[in-house]
Amino acid sequence: MTKPTPASSPQPDSLDDLRERLRQFAAERDWGQFHTPKNLAMSVAIEAAEIMEHFQWLTAAQCAELGVAARHEVALEIADVLLYLVRLADVLDVELIAAAREKIELNAHKYPARRSL
Amino acid sequence: MTKPTPASSPQPDSLDDLRERLRQFAAERDWGQFHTPKNLAMSVAIEAAEIMEHFQWLTAAQCAELGVAARHEVALEIADVLLYLVRLADVLDVELIAAAREKIELNAHKYPARRSL
Amino acid sequence: MTKPTPASSPQPDSLDDLRERLRQFAAERDWGQFHTPKNLAMSVAIEAAEIMEHFQWLTAAQCAELGVAARHEVALEIADVLLYLVRLADVLDVELIAAAREKIELNAHKYPARRSL
Amino acid sequence: MTKPTPASSPQPDSLDDLRERLRQFAAERDWGQFHTPKNLAMSVAIEAAEIMEHFQWLTAAQCAELGVAARHEVALEIADVLLYLVRLADVLDVELIAAAREKIELNAHKYPARRSL
Repeated sequence: MTKPTPASSPQPDSLDDLRERLRQFAAERDWGQFHTPKNLAMSVAIEAAEIMEHFQWLTAAQCAELGVAARHEVALEIADVLLYLVRLADVLDVELIAAAREKIELNAHKYPARRSL
Repeated sequence: MTKPTPASSPQPDSLDDLRERLRQFAAERDWGQFHTPKNLAMSVAIEAAEIMEHFQWLTAAQCAELGVAARHEVALEIADVLLYLVRLADVLDVELIAAAREKIELNAHKYPARRSL
Repeated sequence: MTKPTPASSPQPDSLDDLRERLRQFAAERDWGQFHTPKNLAMSVAIEAAEIMEHFQWLTAAQCAELGVAARHEVALEIADVLLYLVRLADVLDVELIAAAREKIELNAHKYPARRSL
Repeated sequence: MTKPTPASSPQPDSLDDLRERLRQFAAERDWGQFHTPKNLAMSVAIEAAEIMEHFQWLTAAQCAELGVAARHEVALEIADVLLYLVRLADVLDVELIAAAREKIELNAHKYPARRSL
């Protein structure tokens, strides 16, 4: 493991936990051979398109009024993107959270907040 | 906040932390008006395509041999997808980690592990 | 019609013909209201992802060996992208073929051919 | 050539013409090796996302009011998708127009027109 959590930790970080679950999931199915960065990048994009399908023909107002069932379906599509994203970061040995925080910093410089809020 | 972390917590969960940072980031720039589910779903897909660009013309072997600089660039693209995904889940009031765990369970049933590993 | 073909023409250009069929198709179903550039751009991307699904887990070699049935399925997915693309160009009043030829010229300058072929 | 146009034809079909230009373009640059169906499918999706970028943060009303320069940029992005799509159909030996017409027929059955127009 690249980022072990202390044995005493009562609640491992959620993304670390997902990464370990997915690593085990792939190992149990011998799927490592398919999980190239290229294939996983395609998977992220394919699942991202499936999120969009839910909003494709809706107006902005309708998007905000999804029913419980529709929202649950969207939640599972969002989950699909997250799972492939975590797996992609893992096979590339990328620290996902560190990268996300770096990107927020970069964006904060690129798009300064309005002075008077 | 839908899922507050106790004030004494030395290390909030990484995704909860990202969600709060992004919520604040959007508020400081008055970007809430643009962050409709439809627009954010498009953003996830657009950034997912930017990950793919890095692998588009590479063989599987070449994908595994990215240099440090290229890997850092990919890391920041992966981060972009994660940030929009976290933001999308937030505006839809979706529990991202709960959805991810549910999806892993569903996949485990759909694709049973080989018996003898 | 922006680009009429003479009444005597025995074989209208294929893309002009598709554009007219799609325009009529949308009119007959009162779908013009949904066919905003934004929605159609999403549709192109969603259908593009469906093409990718067919190749997601295949090696380059396997991609070249699609059976007749699989190739027909892919053909219909490719068609979906084309149909939305033609429709998008139409609602934006873009001359699709002129744009394609301009782009080929731009690419020829950007990527000069090897001198000795 | 799978679908030759007669030598006397004053105006070959636009898509046939594009296909031939792209075939020659790839041959002159020895790019055939990169133009696997998998890579080309990724290219279609990547370029589709670049179309979306232009509409990502716009309202439906704003999308309809693109200026001349913006529309020209979008036209070239649309062209990119078309070029990769034509090339993908070619390497898969798919008759693009026949597939598009078949798909329109399928859609006409799936979504019957309203009786009284």
